[in-house]
Amino acid sequence: MNFSQALEFYKTQRKKLVAVRYFFFISGWDMQTTAAQGSIESASEQVAMLAGRQYELTSDARYKEAVQVLFENSNNLDEVMRHEIECVQKEIAQTEKIPKQRYEQHMSLAAKAYPVYVQAKHDNDFAAILPYLEQLIQYNQDLTLWWQTPTLKGYDVLLDMYEHNFTTKRYDEFFQLLKQKILPVVGKLPAEQQYIAPEWSTQPYYKEGQKKFCNYLMDVLCFDKNKGLMKESEHPFTNGFGTNDVRITNHYYEENVLSSVFSVLHETGHALYEQQCDANLNGTFCSGGASMGMHESQSRFYENMIGRSKEFWQVHFKHMQQHFPVQLKHVSLPQFLQCVNAVKRSFVRTEADELTYPMHIIIRYEIEKELIDGCLKAKDLPQAWNEKYRSYLGIVPPTDTLGVLQDCHWASGDFGYFPTYALGSAIAAQLFAAMQKQLDVAQCLQSGNTAQINSWLKEHVHKYGASKYPDQIVLLATGEQFNPNYYVDYLLKKFG
Amino acid sequence: MNFSQALEFYKTQRKKLVAVRYFFFISGWDMQTTAAQGSIESASEQVAMLAGRQYELTSDARYKEAVQVLFENSNNLDEVMRHEIECVQKEIAQTEKIPKQRYEQHMSLAAKAYPVYVQAKHDNDFAAILPYLEQLIQYNQDLTLWWQTPTLKGYDVLLDMYEHNFTTKRYDEFFQLLKQKILPVVGKLPAEQQYIAPEWSTQPYYKEGQKKFCNYLMDVLCFDKNKGLMKESEHPFTNGFGTNDVRITNHYYEENVLSSVFSVLHETGHALYEQQCDANLNGTFCSGGASMGMHESQSRFYENMIGRSKEFWQVHFKHMQQHFPVQLKHVSLPQFLQCVNAVKRSFVRTEADELTYPMHIIIRYEIEKELIDGCLKAKDLPQAWNEKYRSYLGIVPPTDTLGVLQDCHWASGDFGYFPTYALGSAIAAQLFAAMQKQLDVAQCLQSGNTAQINSWLKEHVHKYGASKYPDQIVLLATGEQFNPNYYVDYLLKKFG
Repeated sequence: MNFSQALEFYKTQRKKLVAVRYFFFISGWDMQTTAAQGSIESASEQVAMLAGRQYELTSDARYKEAVQVLFENSNNLDEVMRHEIECVQKEIAQTEKIPKQRYEQHMSLAAKAYPVYVQAKHDNDFAAILPYLEQLIQYNQDLTLWWQTPTLKGYDVLLDMYEHNFTTKRYDEFFQLLKQKILPVVGKLPAEQQYIAPEWSTQPYYKEGQKKFCNYLMDVLCFDKNKGLMKESEHPFTNGFGTNDVRITNHYYEENVLSSVFSVLHETGHALYEQQCDANLNGTFCSGGASMGMHESQSRFYENMIGRSKEFWQVHFKHMQQHFPVQLKHVSLPQFLQCVNAVKRSFVRTEADELTYPMHIIIRYEIEKELIDGCLKAKDLPQAWNEKYRSYLGIVPPTDTLGVLQDCHWASGDFGYFPTYALGSAIAAQLFAAMQKQLDVAQCLQSGNTAQINSWLKEHVHKYGASKYPDQIVLLATGEQFNPNYYVDYLLKKFG
Repeated sequence: MNFSQALEFYKTQRKKLVAVRYFFFISGWDMQTTAAQGSIESASEQVAMLAGRQYELTSDARYKEAVQVLFENSNNLDEVMRHEIECVQKEIAQTEKIPKQRYEQHMSLAAKAYPVYVQAKHDNDFAAILPYLEQLIQYNQDLTLWWQTPTLKGYDVLLDMYEHNFTTKRYDEFFQLLKQKILPVVGKLPAEQQYIAPEWSTQPYYKEGQKKFCNYLMDVLCFDKNKGLMKESEHPFTNGFGTNDVRITNHYYEENVLSSVFSVLHETGHALYEQQCDANLNGTFCSGGASMGMHESQSRFYENMIGRSKEFWQVHFKHMQQHFPVQLKHVSLPQFLQCVNAVKRSFVRTEADELTYPMHIIIRYEIEKELIDGCLKAKDLPQAWNEKYRSYLGIVPPTDTLGVLQDCHWASGDFGYFPTYALGSAIAAQLFAAMQKQLDVAQCLQSGNTAQINSWLKEHVHKYGASKYPDQIVLLATGEQFNPNYYVDYLLKKFG
């Protein structure tokens, strides 16, 4: 196969693989937002078939040959294509090491586990999801064996899957810094019972009103509704297909309006990253975010740096009052800001304040390490969870629903994903510092929307999509390597 | 390839093809109910890729060989499998005759045309959809050439695709009978302007209330909501995947509550057919309805024979009054029944009464014949449409929205489909007559739901799925061949 044959074959095969991604996206979306409970099982079987198809295409001998030819002639490729081929080579090598049947079984299992997880969380019934977790952990342990290299072993294999080049060595350093600088501040927080949410924040806010205001916020953040939408699901998430179809979900609790408000800001951050990617990358493997950590840096940037700022709410709080005239009649802007920036010991990661948030992640990271090493068994998860919460946050969840069952990641088969959330928060802080050198963010927010801020992020982060490694993007955008001190400084300045 | 090898290969390939069907279903559903306008085009490209995959699998040489081996040894197969292999052989032969690229282009075009059609209907802009229609007609004309046989030519090729063994010869006879017996009754109807809908029926009925009552009706008809659901779309439809996932859509017009009420009865009829199919047929090509005509017989049976009957509303009208206490306060059951059974000259097929309904179909049938023969051009459709309406119903639609743009079928590339609607109505009448010999339908309806009626239909029609030809099912269920006189008698007795 010569170079131009290889390129042609590669592009044809890539088109097929991109289509497979679309059908994963659309069936996953359907199962999580629409499908009736009783149809999930047969849908999962079809998803397993699609996984088999993806496996076939990825491990196809001619595809491998084409990628090898392109790799060997990478000086004939442009920069984006060179990066893509490097990533694809790694993917092929990893795919080949998974027995096809195990891969299909795993995809089917993960799809089936999701509704079981939702029910288990609802029923506070850890035992219901346990057999699924055991199999999902086993699969991840097997991955670490199949994929290990001289430099990458055990849990590191999984970490690298979600964040290229980020291993326990770097995470340990990062988390050590947080434990050293942030944990003492957390330790000084009053006991859990002493935090009382202001009465206005726990009044009933009717769902339709919440939806309308969340849609208003999507407009403020310049989400393109012609190429995306928002629906409901158990756990808010963002998913998409290129720049043309970017979808977020939200959840609405009548007694907790702030949950949907900050979820929509968070998910819209993810969505903007996808929507602002260079559209020329559509149809390639370089469309979408560069990594989970980079993605989370965008969601947490919009949720926290923008969404919890005084300047943002100086413009938008009156609109929120217009949406909820009864509930917010006697609430002042300073009262509102104090509430949305209150720090407290709490059980649920997604509802946690910025200060305690990384502790929730460190807990999960340490548990995952032990789970994958095998020294912690799935059946002992609730106990291990509760002990870690006592140790880091001084509180013990009263139920597994508020404890080990709160997140869907493990039930989806994702181990090694959580640490990217803390990484994302830290990257967000580093980007924020760099942005502020070039942009008067407060003034930008006074314009009523985030267009200028979006433009900065598009130019320095979003446009690259996945055409560079996260480390490269951080360096290009901020002028230095990943540096968690920006995060520590940000947290200490705000909460210290 | 010996018999058992052939059987094994066939079953593996069938699993892949069934998965392809699922992804067609789920992406089509998404595009029609969920996706943002701006994402349709890229989604359509992925659907075209899926079509290419389906084409590859269907025209695969080993698959063909396997099917041939099974066909030659069909005395070793059970009855269902024998029927399936016969149908698959025909499908393979037809698929092979379509150039792959044309097939993919067509699937992509049909997907892209749908949102254009929705917009064109909304804007009363026939010109917007015309270029799509021209290509879709051309494709159908090409199909008639690719697929023609010594006994099947022209429009007959398309008719046979939707209804096995039903050609212009049989349809002409059927429609001749209707024109002879029913058209004179239609001719005696007062002029269009003289029908005035009762005031209560055109008052605003809020959408949420309509949704709730439609959900109530789904329960009355025993739709299994654990394995299905209802959403909204421009044009109500039913789609599904085996017995485990059956979905209907509805539309809500505040000023026309009867539209959503009779649409939900109609679509739930389709859905019951799918849900009551023998679950053992899931994962085969014999799951789902036997043909478009058989499907329509079920929807129109529940909509008309059940849903417009005095006995049905004797039980359920008071529930409708409870849902809409203001609007229906002063309406009596006889007034309601008179309104939902009123006959009138009208523009829109889906809103037409039972008597004039077949005229709407005859108009489309005659137009399609001319379109496929080539003696009518797509650009002349609005004029031809209006002339036919003047001739059969004595009225001319004031807009194309109420005329040639009212149905999505042509814009979806479906020509030869409409006549099955009239066929379905006639089969419904024939089944109804047979059912009444064994079942006291009025008494069944007094029980408050349709469980006993569903059981009769399950036993005599639904359970077979697509494992028999429609002609066979009609014969088994009613003891005689398709006989349109039942339909004529039913209409004349009710409206004559």
